[in-house]
Amino acid sequence: MSVLEQAAAARVAAIDLAGATRAEKDRALLLMADRLVERTDDIVHANGVDIANARENGLSESVIDRLALDPERVAAMADGLRQLAALPDPVGDVVRGSTLANGLELRQVRVPFGVVGMIYEGRPNVTADAAGICLKSGNAALLRGSGSAFSSNAAIVSVLRKAVADAGLPANTIQLLDATTRDSVKELMRARGLVDVLIPRGGASLIKTVVEQSTVPVIETGVGNCHVYVDSAADLEKALGVTLNSKTQRYSTCNTAESLLVHVEIADTFLPLILSSLAEAGVTVHGDARVSGYSDAVVTATEEDWGTEYLSPDISVAVVDSLDDALDHIRRYGTGHTEAIVSESTTATRRFVAGVDAAAVMVNASTRFTDGGEFGFGAEIGISTQKLHARGPMGLPELTSTKYVVTGNGHTR
Amino acid sequence: MSVLEQAAAARVAAIDLAGATRAEKDRALLLMADRLVERTDDIVHANGVDIANARENGLSESVIDRLALDPERVAAMADGLRQLAALPDPVGDVVRGSTLANGLELRQVRVPFGVVGMIYEGRPNVTADAAGICLKSGNAALLRGSGSAFSSNAAIVSVLRKAVADAGLPANTIQLLDATTRDSVKELMRARGLVDVLIPRGGASLIKTVVEQSTVPVIETGVGNCHVYVDSAADLEKALGVTLNSKTQRYSTCNTAESLLVHVEIADTFLPLILSSLAEAGVTVHGDARVSGYSDAVVTATEEDWGTEYLSPDISVAVVDSLDDALDHIRRYGTGHTEAIVSESTTATRRFVAGVDAAAVMVNASTRFTDGGEFGFGAEIGISTQKLHARGPMGLPELTSTKYVVTGNGHTR
Repeated sequence: MSVLEQAAAARVAAIDLAGATRAEKDRALLLMADRLVERTDDIVHANGVDIANARENGLSESVIDRLALDPERVAAMADGLRQLAALPDPVGDVVRGSTLANGLELRQVRVPFGVVGMIYEGRPNVTADAAGICLKSGNAALLRGSGSAFSSNAAIVSVLRKAVADAGLPANTIQLLDATTRDSVKELMRARGLVDVLIPRGGASLIKTVVEQSTVPVIETGVGNCHVYVDSAADLEKALGVTLNSKTQRYSTCNTAESLLVHVEIADTFLPLILSSLAEAGVTVHGDARVSGYSDAVVTATEEDWGTEYLSPDISVAVVDSLDDALDHIRRYGTGHTEAIVSESTTATRRFVAGVDAAAVMVNASTRFTDGGEFGFGAEIGISTQKLHARGPMGLPELTSTKYVVTGNGHTR
Repeated sequence: MSVLEQAAAARVAAIDLAGATRAEKDRALLLMADRLVERTDDIVHANGVDIANARENGLSESVIDRLALDPERVAAMADGLRQLAALPDPVGDVVRGSTLANGLELRQVRVPFGVVGMIYEGRPNVTADAAGICLKSGNAALLRGSGSAFSSNAAIVSVLRKAVADAGLPANTIQLLDATTRDSVKELMRARGLVDVLIPRGGASLIKTVVEQSTVPVIETGVGNCHVYVDSAADLEKALGVTLNSKTQRYSTCNTAESLLVHVEIADTFLPLILSSLAEAGVTVHGDARVSGYSDAVVTATEEDWGTEYLSPDISVAVVDSLDDALDHIRRYGTGHTEAIVSESTTATRRFVAGVDAAAVMVNASTRFTDGGEFGFGAEIGISTQKLHARGPMGLPELTSTKYVVTGNGHTR
C-alpha cells in the first residue's frame, strides 16, 4: 500500500475510533500490553535482524544500544501502555461551556485530531509509546520510524494491530509506514486532508525538513539550546547545583543545558567553583575571553558555540554585564525550549520570566525538569518548541482538537 | 522598508508590548478610538481615493459598498476598539497550575504569540479590528490588506500608529505592508522565525495559497460549505425556521448554509414547505433527482454543486436515506466549519454530534450562530476551520500561546 492509501485507511479507522468509549480503548491498551509480553521472543528475534544490520553497517555501539531490545525493555513498553490505560481520557472533556443570553447551550468539547503522523528516529520503544498515546487520545497513528529499526518496528506493530483488532477496534488504528525509503516521508508530508497533524521527533535537520516542506500542519519538537543564567543575586549553592544538574544529569536530552551565562558581579566567586566542578564531571568548557581568565582548561568559544546544542559533555559559558544582556543573548541564540535563572531577587526573576520567550522558564530549578513525566502528565509524545497549539511537554490533551456543540430549540438569528 | 525589515521591527516592538500591562494597552486602545473619530475627515478623504480607483477599474457596486467609509463606519471602528478595551486581558491568564510532588510550583501562563501577520481582503474596518485585537492580546501586527483599500488602510494605520506612540507603546506594534504587489504576501509567508503566526482571511483561493506555501505557521479560516440536516424525527416548524435562517439571514458569510439534506421519511411533508419558502425568499434550489420531483423550479444539481460555497441565494438540496448517509455526505463535501441537525430524537442528535467532524455542530439551531459575537467572545479575528491550536470563532485567548513557569528553590533531578 502507498502512504496515501494507508492514510485513507487510517481516516476510516479514525471515524470508528472517535466513537470508542474510554473502556473500549483501555481494554485495547491492556491487551496490547499483554500481547507484547507474550510475544517477547518474536520481538527480540526481529530486533536481532536490525542489530545484525547495524553492526554490518558499522553503526556505533551507543546507537546499537539505543536500538537493542531485551525482555526487560519489552516489558517496559508494556508497562507504558498499562500506564496509559490508567490515565483519564481527554476526549469528551468540556473545555468551556456556557448558556448564552438567548438560551443556546454552548460547549467546547475535546475531540481527537483524527489521523496523526509520527516521524521518528532511534529507539523502537517509541513505536509502542506513540501507538498507545494516539489510541488513547482517539487518533489513528501513521508511524514512520527509522530504517535501522524497521524489523523491530514491524514486529511490534504486527503484535499491536492484532491486539487492537481482538479488542474490537479497527486494526488500522496503528499502521507502520515503509522506512526503507525517503519517499514515505515525502508522501506523508503532502497528505494534507488525510493526515491532520504531523509530529517529527529527532534531530534538528529532520525537524527543519518537515517544518519547511510539509503542507500537513506540524508540531515542531525538541531542539533545545537551553541556558542557565546565574544572576548577581544568586545563591551560590543553588547556582552550583542547578547548573551541574542541568548540564550533567544526562547529556543527550533536549532539556539539557548547553550554555551558562554568569552575571559579571558574581563571576569572581561563582566561576572558579563551577569551572572546577564541570572539569571534575568531565565537561569541556567553551568560554568567552572573560571566562578564559579563570581557568587554563577553557577552550575559546566561537560564534558557532553559542548556537550549538552539543548533546555531549560540552558547555558554552559567557560572562554578561546585566540581566538585559543575558536576555539579549538568549533571544539571539536560544531555541525557545527551556531557560533557567538562579537568583534570590524577586525583581530579577520576575523580569527574566517575563522577558524570556520559551516553552518553559525555570526559576531556581534545573532545566532537566521540562518533561511530561516530571510535570505529572503521565505520558509524553514530545516537547513542542512552537507556539501554535501546544508548547512544552505534550501529553494526551495536546493530541486533541476541540469542537463547539451548540444546542437550541429551533433558535434562529 | 522590506517586509522582512518590517517583521524585524515588529519583533522588537513585540518584546516591549509583551511587558505592557492591561492598563497601558487599554489606554492605547481608547486613544486609538478617539483619534479615529477626530481624524474622520482625513480617513474618509483617503477612502475617496480608493473609491475613485475602484470605479475606474470597474469594480461592482457591492464591492464598492464594502470598501466605502463614511463617518458612521469610522465611528463603528472606534466603538470596536473601545469594546476591546473593556474585555479582559488574556495575557497572564493561568491556564493550569499545580505543585508537584517535589515542591516545584508549575504554572502554565498565557503569553502573546509575538508577531501576527494578517492577510485580508475587502473592508478597511478589518484593519482597525485586527490592529486592536492584536494589541490587546500583546501581539505586534503586520497587516496586509487588499490593494483596492490601500489608501484607506494607510490613513487608518497612520492614525493608529500615532495614537499607540502617544499612549507610550511602540508605534511598530501596528504596521501596514505594501499591498500594491504580491511580493509582500510571498515575503510574509517566508518570514519564519520573525513572524509567529499568519492568519489569512478571505476567499478560498487566498487561503489555499497561504496554507500550501507558507513556512510560517498558519491558522486557516473561513471557508464554509455548511449543511443543515433535517432528520426524520425533526419538528417541522423548527426545521423550516432553522433552514431558512441558516440560508437566507445573510448570503455572503462563511456560516451561511449552502446545502440541505432531508431524511427520506420526512421528505414528503418537509420538502414542499421548504421549497416554497426558499422560492419565496428568492433562493434557487439545486436539487438531486428526488428533490426535483417536488417542484419544477428545482435546477438539477451537478457533482460540483455539492462542494460549492455559493455565498449567494443558491442552495443544494438532497434527499438522504439515513442519518449515516447524511454523515457520509457531510464527510465528503463539508469543509469542517458548521453542520446542523434538526431533530427531536436524542439518539439521532447524539450520533450526529459525535459523527460530524467540524468546528461547530448545531442542534436545532441556525448555522449562523457560529460567530465570536454570538458566542459571547466580545471580539473575533476570524473563524478557524483547522484543528490545530484554534477551531471555530477565535477571540483574544486564541491569539496567545502559553509558557510554563516552574519555580523551585534549587531543585535538581
